[in-house]
Amino acid sequence: MKAPTELLKNLRAKRPLIHHLTNVVTVNDCANMTLALGGAPVMTEDDGDALEMAGYAGALVINMGTLDARSLGRMIEVGRKARGMGKPVVFDPVGAGATKVRREAALRILTEVKPTIVKGNAAEILFLAGAAVAQKGVDADASDDAAKAVGRLAQAHGCVVAATGPIDYVSDGKHTARLEGGDGYLARITGTGCMTASLTGCCAAAEGDAFAAAVYAILCMKVAGEKAAGALAPGEGVGHFRIRLLDAVSLLHDGDLRFEGRVYDV
Amino acid sequence: MKAPTELLKNLRAKRPLIHHLTNVVTVNDCANMTLALGGAPVMTEDDGDALEMAGYAGALVINMGTLDARSLGRMIEVGRKARGMGKPVVFDPVGAGATKVRREAALRILTEVKPTIVKGNAAEILFLAGAAVAQKGVDADASDDAAKAVGRLAQAHGCVVAATGPIDYVSDGKHTARLEGGDGYLARITGTGCMTASLTGCCAAAEGDAFAAAVYAILCMKVAGEKAAGALAPGEGVGHFRIRLLDAVSLLHDGDLRFEGRVYDV
Amino acid sequence: MKAPTELLKNLRAKRPLIHHLTNVVTVNDCANMTLALGGAPVMTEDDGDALEMAGYAGALVINMGTLDARSLGRMIEVGRKARGMGKPVVFDPVGAGATKVRREAALRILTEVKPTIVKGNAAEILFLAGAAVAQKGVDADASDDAAKAVGRLAQAHGCVVAATGPIDYVSDGKHTARLEGGDGYLARITGTGCMTASLTGCCAAAEGDAFAAAVYAILCMKVAGEKAAGALAPGEGVGHFRIRLLDAVSLLHDGDLRFEGRVYDV
Repeated sequence: MKAPTELLKNLRAKRPLIHHLTNVVTVNDCANMTLALGGAPVMTEDDGDALEMAGYAGALVINMGTLDARSLGRMIEVGRKARGMGKPVVFDPVGAGATKVRREAALRILTEVKPTIVKGNAAEILFLAGAAVAQKGVDADASDDAAKAVGRLAQAHGCVVAATGPIDYVSDGKHTARLEGGDGYLARITGTGCMTASLTGCCAAAEGDAFAAAVYAILCMKVAGEKAAGALAPGEGVGHFRIRLLDAVSLLHDGDLRFEGRVYDV
Repeated sequence: MKAPTELLKNLRAKRPLIHHLTNVVTVNDCANMTLALGGAPVMTEDDGDALEMAGYAGALVINMGTLDARSLGRMIEVGRKARGMGKPVVFDPVGAGATKVRREAALRILTEVKPTIVKGNAAEILFLAGAAVAQKGVDADASDDAAKAVGRLAQAHGCVVAATGPIDYVSDGKHTARLEGGDGYLARITGTGCMTASLTGCCAAAEGDAFAAAVYAILCMKVAGEKAAGALAPGEGVGHFRIRLLDAVSLLHDGDLRFEGRVYDV
Repeated sequence: MKAPTELLKNLRAKRPLIHHLTNVVTVNDCANMTLALGGAPVMTEDDGDALEMAGYAGALVINMGTLDARSLGRMIEVGRKARGMGKPVVFDPVGAGATKVRREAALRILTEVKPTIVKGNAAEILFLAGAAVAQKGVDADASDDAAKAVGRLAQAHGCVVAATGPIDYVSDGKHTARLEGGDGYLARITGTGCMTASLTGCCAAAEGDAFAAAVYAILCMKVAGEKAAGALAPGEGVGHFRIRLLDAVSLLHDGDLRFEGRVYDV
């Protein structure tokens, strides 16, 4: 696939509002990452405020990391409004599959909001792919893996699906990309998944092709992760990795994000 | 105007409780900044707890960044109690003007709590100045700018008003000060506005002249921002700026905060 | 007392889920500290989700820093379930004694959940020891200090009690340990108490002896605090201390945590 050539340049020129309905654990990281890449983050916890804000947003990020009954209702209502207005909605199904509450919430958001992009870790995507496919009367393949699950889920719901991990997979149901690179440190701090969802919201607000936007956003996190780990001095651990990751995202340029040698067709 | 000479020294000797009713995005930053300057932060989300805590506080900071109906009621009730006890209340009208919910909430807090100091960015203060003045039957001047808006709002409500931006303005309705300095990095991380409100709460708890306290607090953030940006090593970006900003606030002394060459009468 | 020899090694091999019902101020710090020591943090704000998650947890950490009526009910219900399943529950009674709401909440959690380990600062533990002992018809000694309070509270409730401060005390009601070391910087950032509770949850999930687990966890924070303060470069203040503290925890090994010269029988 072909990489967007000036996505970050365009994003930073537009500074779109990236509307977040997200969790309390990593909300500060998501705000700072959004700013670092070039978006303008907004977070809200009031139903009416969130609904009106959707009208001004360049993209909406829904993250169910610490959802409850009230915030779930808000996510669905605001998500439907944003989709109805043709705005990209990124859904991060944090912990989908782990508990009954999360299983049901993830499936409701998936089917009622119809997100533009679903981005989860491999376990979350495997759960959704299995459940979503099962709901439609198609058996999930027991040997299913992330590379196949992204395609199945994308086809079943007509969206772009990304599964993150040491190797990432992104699919629009027709094409699937495999992304290599990154650094093991990315799994040693909280919120890199949530931050990737925020970066995906930024990229989707700047680039109309949701598949390209998702690949680009994940590549941003992988390249920044490599730079952050590479910059660690002796005696520095995960604390400095977090800081250097934010440094690296703020210093990324489109030239750092070439697909050659990193992004492959599956 | 004349700068307080030993505000930080007094603050650090007293360590007043700085009571926060604030948002979930930057609450950790506000707590750490309060500690770094010399106050003792307390945050609470229970109505009764917040109300009792107001009695022990040196100052109250109300920040409506992620308000909802319940927290708005709490802000008003606790704010009125604090004012009734003669305690300084700092109000940060985050996003005032952006949505109906925020417009109404900001005006209710302004009129029902009657904060000692209102500190917002220029857009927020321009909205409040326009609305507040309009409510009183006086036309807002279409050519109004932040320098005039702080004075109008201060006069209309009998409070001190600060509008932050590349240049900051603070007014008590009679006198207006213009503050220069700071660094562009301050706009590239989330929460510097919220943190400035916390610093303002600290300064107001240590200095009875609310006008001087607001100017001093904003100057703390500007000087710390300059020091933090100046300390950045090659390859460091917004991640390290955040850390170095907290470093710099914790290392500020009264001698760093002279008004000459930074604070001017308008 | 004898130190566990391979607690961190075992913890990192097991990576137990450390379930948190905690406050919004330091929740991100608690998640990152849990990861840094070797646990897998999970935070949730939904009643049903929290209850089911207790079944999968290696330990539960209850922190009442920003409790309200709803979260208090959840803490008690989920805490009772975890105890009923024989899982270690760590309780951090943040601000116990400060307000009526907090006094009542702390005593309810103490008596209804019956936590495995109660870890607070000296003021919190002195309040609980006085109140709990008074409830049982035994007079609190007016000359009570932290060293005695931990033993009294531990005896009254059949749990392990830790009181943190420049010197820490841990007791199981029979034996009391005094811990020395640490650094004054630990009191200059928000959340070191909360983070210590998270580390205690990690250690309790890896080590069946709750007394040894609590001592080990507090020692982790003291040793990491010393390393972080020692690593500060000129011009670095509390911002870098926070980062270097997380660095240091992530780089701790069992060999750093010998009890000799640090942990004494009282």
